[in-house]
Amino acid sequence: MRKPIIGVMGGTDAGDRVVQLAERLGALIAARGWVLLNGGRKFGVMAASARGAKSAGGTTIGVLPDENTDGASSDIDYAIVTGLGDARNLVNVLSSDVVVACPGQAGTLSEVALALNHGKPVITLCFDVGPAFDAYRRDGLLTSADTPENAVEQAAAALSSRRDQST
Amino acid sequence: MRKPIIGVMGGTDAGDRVVQLAERLGALIAARGWVLLNGGRKFGVMAASARGAKSAGGTTIGVLPDENTDGASSDIDYAIVTGLGDARNLVNVLSSDVVVACPGQAGTLSEVALALNHGKPVITLCFDVGPAFDAYRRDGLLTSADTPENAVEQAAAALSSRRDQST
Amino acid sequence: MRKPIIGVMGGTDAGDRVVQLAERLGALIAARGWVLLNGGRKFGVMAASARGAKSAGGTTIGVLPDENTDGASSDIDYAIVTGLGDARNLVNVLSSDVVVACPGQAGTLSEVALALNHGKPVITLCFDVGPAFDAYRRDGLLTSADTPENAVEQAAAALSSRRDQST
Amino acid sequence: MRKPIIGVMGGTDAGDRVVQLAERLGALIAARGWVLLNGGRKFGVMAASARGAKSAGGTTIGVLPDENTDGASSDIDYAIVTGLGDARNLVNVLSSDVVVACPGQAGTLSEVALALNHGKPVITLCFDVGPAFDAYRRDGLLTSADTPENAVEQAAAALSSRRDQST
Repeated sequence: MRKPIIGVMGGTDAGDRVVQLAERLGALIAARGWVLLNGGRKFGVMAASARGAKSAGGTTIGVLPDENTDGASSDIDYAIVTGLGDARNLVNVLSSDVVVACPGQAGTLSEVALALNHGKPVITLCFDVGPAFDAYRRDGLLTSADTPENAVEQAAAALSSRRDQST
Repeated sequence: MRKPIIGVMGGTDAGDRVVQLAERLGALIAARGWVLLNGGRKFGVMAASARGAKSAGGTTIGVLPDENTDGASSDIDYAIVTGLGDARNLVNVLSSDVVVACPGQAGTLSEVALALNHGKPVITLCFDVGPAFDAYRRDGLLTSADTPENAVEQAAAALSSRRDQST
Repeated sequence: MRKPIIGVMGGTDAGDRVVQLAERLGALIAARGWVLLNGGRKFGVMAASARGAKSAGGTTIGVLPDENTDGASSDIDYAIVTGLGDARNLVNVLSSDVVVACPGQAGTLSEVALALNHGKPVITLCFDVGPAFDAYRRDGLLTSADTPENAVEQAAAALSSRRDQST
Repeated sequence: MRKPIIGVMGGTDAGDRVVQLAERLGALIAARGWVLLNGGRKFGVMAASARGAKSAGGTTIGVLPDENTDGASSDIDYAIVTGLGDARNLVNVLSSDVVVACPGQAGTLSEVALALNHGKPVITLCFDVGPAFDAYRRDGLLTSADTPENAVEQAAAALSSRRDQST
């Protein structure tokens, strides 16, 4: 049995509050025994969530847009080097059992959209993606959380629900 | 000088009103002498916009997600077969000088987001993508239109502005 | 009915002889009424084959590895901007009905291999890909030509054979 | 410091001898403390090399072509789901510090070619890729081995040489 993979998405430019959210989220994911996957770079939500996961003894995978590992965070255990630019956003979400989206801009919104388009559960953490995504909210695929603790609870519920469906 | 390429995005499931919008939009793009590019498939906004462009004597490019042309609309002149699934959404927007987004769901929203993330002008046509994209609206990169005629006017302005910048 | 697309692959660094081969090949493809597709850049076999096709009044598609058109040959009519780096090599071959491989190095060999792996007819022009590909030669999928005229004859035969199969 | 990643490529259809080679290779990679990366599927060289690595207590990453994990080998620890088809071959080789190519057909040859095109050391194990790749053999980027033990020695040398260069 492979361990669940939780994708953490979010902005490259992140203020202190978002960095703290992402770091706490990473630590909670690791504490559950889940693998954290993100875009692997040394900035913003990517760097913070990987640092949080490693500080709690977790495992981290970074799916990089570039053709080498030069831009990878040192808190990434396994660097997947895609050379695909933003096309790697699809790899991020398809590889995740559940996606948690921290505040971000268009890159993060593209990941939310790609995840939902492939039926992946998405939890937005302190990030309002607006009414354009309401159809997915009604289906229960898109939910929102206002603390990392709450996001991780919702991720656990989503994982459990998926497990029931595949039994 | 290559002809401008206008990307038309939008839902696979489209009702009568959206089909008519997309068909009219395609015809207006062709009438301007621009090339229409879309996702190439035989459904919804893709099929309608290609049909509109061909009816007005235009040229159409379809960037297909599959590994062959079986699902291509017969109104596509040049089928680009990617085999990349939704990762081809990036190709759609990078290949377009301007993107017009007709109503759609998560697939279309991913294209709006990817386009904006790469600095491409996006015009939403009768499609409200909500406040999550407000930063791009403030920058003038994201605008909205309520008729195909208006969308094409905005596309002309965006093309003209880009030409000025590169002179 | 879409026009056949012939993919022309080959090296970025090409000597005079190969440049002449590629230019002549492009002209012959155009003379048949086929569309020429290549990697779109302004070097080597890509530039030469596009120039040849345009000189004979043909149509050219360039599938670029970069995120913009800065590196595109001016003889490309339709630039497909992928941002995928070498992953666009798959797009090149899947979009082609037949692939002609002019002399090149590893990039070209990857395109030969990807094309054969997807059942695309490949014609090597003055380019020996060696015994590693013999299984495909025995199947008739891989053939070789020593003049552009001969390559185009073989392409015509491959197109005709595919048309018969799909009837 | 991330652990070195060794990419193991090779055919989906593999006879007993190649399966044994791949399994032994996987075990030796794990015994060195390196991570094994392959295409992740439950067939041929992919399944055998992952099984070998797990039997020796190693860690395995599988980069899958499909949009889900249904086809993944149960010996894969971390499944990277790309949805990219053969375009994921680029991800395989860019993510590897060294590539070992076991016998295979066009898919494997495409990975050898893509790796060499990006300057990655490639070791062919009981697999003759022929004279088309001679330029890379002369540069020392492409070497050949006739036992898994020998391949792993060459991989160690390549890793050591890369480490020296980056100091």
